[in-house]
Amino acid sequence: MTMKLIEKYVGGFVSGREMEEIRGEVEEATREVLEGTGEGKEFLGWVRLPESYDREEFERIKAAAEKIRGDSDVLVVIGIGGSYLGARAVIEALQGQNRNTKVASADDTSGRVLQGASPSLTRSKASSAPLEIYFAGKDISSLELNSLLEICGGKDVSVNVVSKSGTTTEPAIAFRVFRELLEKKYGKEGAAKRIYATTDRAKGALKQLADAEGYETFVVPDDVGGRYSVLTAVGILPIAVAGIDVDELIAGAGQAMEEFSEVDFEKNLAMRYAGYRNILYRKGFSVEVLAGYEPRMAMMSEWWKQLFGESEGKEGKGIFPASVVFSTDLHSMGQYIQEGERKLFETVLSFEDAGVEVLVPECDGDLDGLGYLEGKSLEFVNERAMRATILAHVDGGVPNVVLEMDRLREFELGYLIYFFMMSCAISGYVLGVNPFDQPGVESYKKNMFALLGKPGFEELRGELEGRL
Amino acid sequence: MTMKLIEKYVGGFVSGREMEEIRGEVEEATREVLEGTGEGKEFLGWVRLPESYDREEFERIKAAAEKIRGDSDVLVVIGIGGSYLGARAVIEALQGQNRNTKVASADDTSGRVLQGASPSLTRSKASSAPLEIYFAGKDISSLELNSLLEICGGKDVSVNVVSKSGTTTEPAIAFRVFRELLEKKYGKEGAAKRIYATTDRAKGALKQLADAEGYETFVVPDDVGGRYSVLTAVGILPIAVAGIDVDELIAGAGQAMEEFSEVDFEKNLAMRYAGYRNILYRKGFSVEVLAGYEPRMAMMSEWWKQLFGESEGKEGKGIFPASVVFSTDLHSMGQYIQEGERKLFETVLSFEDAGVEVLVPECDGDLDGLGYLEGKSLEFVNERAMRATILAHVDGGVPNVVLEMDRLREFELGYLIYFFMMSCAISGYVLGVNPFDQPGVESYKKNMFALLGKPGFEELRGELEGRL
Repeated sequence: MTMKLIEKYVGGFVSGREMEEIRGEVEEATREVLEGTGEGKEFLGWVRLPESYDREEFERIKAAAEKIRGDSDVLVVIGIGGSYLGARAVIEALQGQNRNTKVASADDTSGRVLQGASPSLTRSKASSAPLEIYFAGKDISSLELNSLLEICGGKDVSVNVVSKSGTTTEPAIAFRVFRELLEKKYGKEGAAKRIYATTDRAKGALKQLADAEGYETFVVPDDVGGRYSVLTAVGILPIAVAGIDVDELIAGAGQAMEEFSEVDFEKNLAMRYAGYRNILYRKGFSVEVLAGYEPRMAMMSEWWKQLFGESEGKEGKGIFPASVVFSTDLHSMGQYIQEGERKLFETVLSFEDAGVEVLVPECDGDLDGLGYLEGKSLEFVNERAMRATILAHVDGGVPNVVLEMDRLREFELGYLIYFFMMSCAISGYVLGVNPFDQPGVESYKKNMFALLGKPGFEELRGELEGRL
Repeated sequence: MTMKLIEKYVGGFVSGREMEEIRGEVEEATREVLEGTGEGKEFLGWVRLPESYDREEFERIKAAAEKIRGDSDVLVVIGIGGSYLGARAVIEALQGQNRNTKVASADDTSGRVLQGASPSLTRSKASSAPLEIYFAGKDISSLELNSLLEICGGKDVSVNVVSKSGTTTEPAIAFRVFRELLEKKYGKEGAAKRIYATTDRAKGALKQLADAEGYETFVVPDDVGGRYSVLTAVGILPIAVAGIDVDELIAGAGQAMEEFSEVDFEKNLAMRYAGYRNILYRKGFSVEVLAGYEPRMAMMSEWWKQLFGESEGKEGKGIFPASVVFSTDLHSMGQYIQEGERKLFETVLSFEDAGVEVLVPECDGDLDGLGYLEGKSLEFVNERAMRATILAHVDGGVPNVVLEMDRLREFELGYLIYFFMMSCAISGYVLGVNPFDQPGVESYKKNMFALLGKPGFEELRGELEGRL
């Protein structure tokens, strides 16, 4: 098994009988997902994607990624929501949050510091980043956009604009800015060779523009919603540009697809997770905290929050998704989790092998009291901290579901992504909502168009202005 | 007034009568803070700090910051919780999350890109970062530590270790690693000139080591708890190293101190915010979402979460603090906030003047439908999006408290920090808890020591091992 779902720390809060009672609902929900019989069934393209994806497009993505890596210092990915979070989450999870920071060359490093430090300090090295990747069009901050323009100054830039329609306000603004920048810098034709559009297969503003200008295009499938789209071209192109092994990522998702394609409440972990979540919710545990021990997983948590929050938060219900990075947040949100209002449960992500080993150095004297840890690996300490925290929180009245994987690499991450998507879909059906729509997102957009003076919204504008 | 607290979007959820009813409690709580008569009164050093701070130490901090800026490429700040979050939050809020990324030189930039782009695109430029600042000892991840060691390779490094005791596991481990690195690189004496210890005034492992080795030391005051300590040496040294005007930061806090030193429920905004929060909590709004429209404020939100979560989350009660960055998260958590379980309220941070102007570029044709925004500033669009969202969420049943400030600079940030600390202290007393302790943080530590095999914890170890 690629992943283990450890149930004993939730067992004190959810009985076997309760799991038996919800079994029928979870089985029914799972069938709805697998057989495409539920609400939102037109958005189930992600379910078989790991085997049905477009091989020809996949090869074009890889070729485009190679070209970008060859002719660019910076890739700017323009998108928002599902067209943004997944790619960033995967890239940071596998390459760290400092991947855009240049490290000294290997020679320089080993000569001046790493070798100077204890030779045992680090036994392997993560590879350095091949090029910088930034995300734009995910907000409307002039400070952010200006900062990114400064970073791009004097560097060779390519752009991947990701938008099904091409008219979403945030990415459309950013794309105007970067398109202008590229056209001034490389000329219209040169720019066209550096702009990659991930958009609708056939229609929409961006597709039309791309065809007119000659941008290479990739497809946002009709049957995959934004928050389920990270393994389509939406996520795969930027992830491939980062130098990540996208075949392995898909293979991991494929493994999960196999494992979760059977309606078997005993063995199907996506079903069991969905069962626990819904039982806990019904018992008043209305906030779920995703807890991890690797800071580089912070954006994966944001992706997870969108996935579950947007899928379940509707019709006045849904578990509120939150996240923490331990042990950092044990010295921040830890107090609340341990002793605050008892409405929380935690889902804990555990990776056994970090892939790099740093040891606690020896030291003259033992002023700091760490003597008993000398020569131990940080990995060991981190793992013990995790076990310690799980037990403390369970004792404090917080159910813990633990997801254990061997390591944090492409295969495992692809698996985890698929696991969460499948479990989320099942969970949403058990909750009684359509896990594939997001009707509430229109409310702010409509108001925004009105307040911005968009033609056609004059009446609403008058009404809203009066309330401000 | 440096800040406005806009009450009309909470008015539909909290009546004037309810505010009158809680007035007495809030006044009493405020007196407890100002007069030092409540629980935890030994930790009220932050209340008068903006006027009572140690001027001599402040000058030493500035001199140390200048020295570090002169002789270092990188400052590594080692600390966790309150010894970490505040400094990082302030630095990122004022200099952005990409401050460690090198931008091209001004000449290069203007020659190749910014000038190449529309001259109207950017009218001012943020200054580029003077040196890189990283945070360590905030987790136990070997991936993080290894990545930071790689970044430091070949660069000149100084270290600011921040720990009252010097024995907290996470920072103590990181300090061993960086101390070894510096001593190998610069020799014992050279390293001592690059290590700055912010610790107890007189006692503890770190103070003892610093005195023995000759590190310059700064003080973690006895009467200021970690989450209230950002304006002490704990936060001020790293912030000053970043090149931020710390006098202005303190001046802003001083302004807030003046404004919030009177027990006047009509005028004292810290009191009003505390009043609204507690009324909302009693009415079942048990999750508070801090919402901002500047991504660089994300770490300030983390600081805020520690402040409120650790102060209030105890004895089985407390508002659960969460945060979002809009408009990004309108395409993520927005759905839940709009239509999920109705237990949320939002506190919205608004800064009118971003300090930099980027305009929506003109464009041939109007495929993307943005024609009506051409020539408008992003600032304008962002502000309209904020108003639109406030109205949409209020209509969806989410009370909104809006905090409006003119701009996001040192003075305003200092003011905001003090506002939150004062309001949090008042709020905690109204809730009926001690807002200055964190008894729950010990639970995981105790378990961790046991599971790590620390001498003295043998009995607990046996018990815990049996449960794993």
